[in-house]
Amino acid sequence: MNAEKGLLIVLSGPSGVGKGTVCAALRKVCPNLVYSVSATTRPPRPGEQEGVNYFFKTREEFERMIERGELLEWAEYVGNYYGTPRRFVEEMLEAGKDVLLEIEVQGAMQVKRRYPEGVFIFLVPPSMEELRRRILGRGTEGDAAITERLEAARAELAMMAEYDYVVVNDTVEHACERIRAIVTAEHCRRDRLMPRYQKLLAEGK
Amino acid sequence: MNAEKGLLIVLSGPSGVGKGTVCAALRKVCPNLVYSVSATTRPPRPGEQEGVNYFFKTREEFERMIERGELLEWAEYVGNYYGTPRRFVEEMLEAGKDVLLEIEVQGAMQVKRRYPEGVFIFLVPPSMEELRRRILGRGTEGDAAITERLEAARAELAMMAEYDYVVVNDTVEHACERIRAIVTAEHCRRDRLMPRYQKLLAEGK
Repeated sequence: MNAEKGLLIVLSGPSGVGKGTVCAALRKVCPNLVYSVSATTRPPRPGEQEGVNYFFKTREEFERMIERGELLEWAEYVGNYYGTPRRFVEEMLEAGKDVLLEIEVQGAMQVKRRYPEGVFIFLVPPSMEELRRRILGRGTEGDAAITERLEAARAELAMMAEYDYVVVNDTVEHACERIRAIVTAEHCRRDRLMPRYQKLLAEGK
Repeated sequence: MNAEKGLLIVLSGPSGVGKGTVCAALRKVCPNLVYSVSATTRPPRPGEQEGVNYFFKTREEFERMIERGELLEWAEYVGNYYGTPRRFVEEMLEAGKDVLLEIEVQGAMQVKRRYPEGVFIFLVPPSMEELRRRILGRGTEGDAAITERLEAARAELAMMAEYDYVVVNDTVEHACERIRAIVTAEHCRRDRLMPRYQKLLAEGK
């Protein structure tokens, strides 16, 4: 039995910084992390499984979840809702599992209001120049669109002040290593270990 | 040039928990950490070397160092003085090096008053029974000294509340791994990275 709750780890950062790539790499090196499954109103694609890829919901169901506060965070993209169901995350945390959420900065701030005890990690590019290169590398957009994306990324970078940790995504390997270290270190934080501490002292009497 | 100061990492814990063993193992796996060498009036144990394990001092020499303010912290423990020469530590931190101090709990609290920004790690035994075994296993002391050590260790365990991190010394390897992770994570802490953050934002303009 595990009496300790798991850690809620929120990985976020500006658009284009490489959150998805780092998260995919983490899945390989951190098999003990539980990856949150999102809810969506978009229809399942062939092969997608309920509760594995997504929790599939109707608009009515999703809106009821919003009303009942059953989502840790949510947003609407291209006519579909996407969000993080609170129950799955809470059940995993109660079972002592660490849960990783990879989300956009707006969603991360919603989570922070509900779970200030979460571990908030902000992924940053090694330089603005490198972020520009990554945004350019994504595809063929006009100068105006690129400038807009960069402006948005700059505004998102200012959100760094709201996070506990800043991880530079210089290489995916290094970023993963730092995130793993943060998770290990957070488990050693004295305030989180207080219950075990009380037990150890009682044992000595 | 490194504009960032190094981290002062203070490793402490109750007598007999294995601070010395963990510290010796860290030396091998963390060549970038600078290890502060303590001064002491206790006689060398077999294999201990002057200037490597300790600076061995007479009581008169040690008291002169106290008077001159040459110690970052010092304490008298089971009839012997232990202390940390101040200048070396401060020079290394200014040069951007992380410095590890392995010290007794009384000394750690003195350092905390002077360096609240330090990283305070408390090493604990997996159980009180295991701590008793380790203290007995040393076999370098008489019964009275052992009883005294156990009583002191129990009182020292209560000091845990003053630390940032608690590391269970179940195996030396695991303890080292956790300490390395703590150092890595502390370097990622947002409040420590603020200067770099300001630079990154300015660069984007």
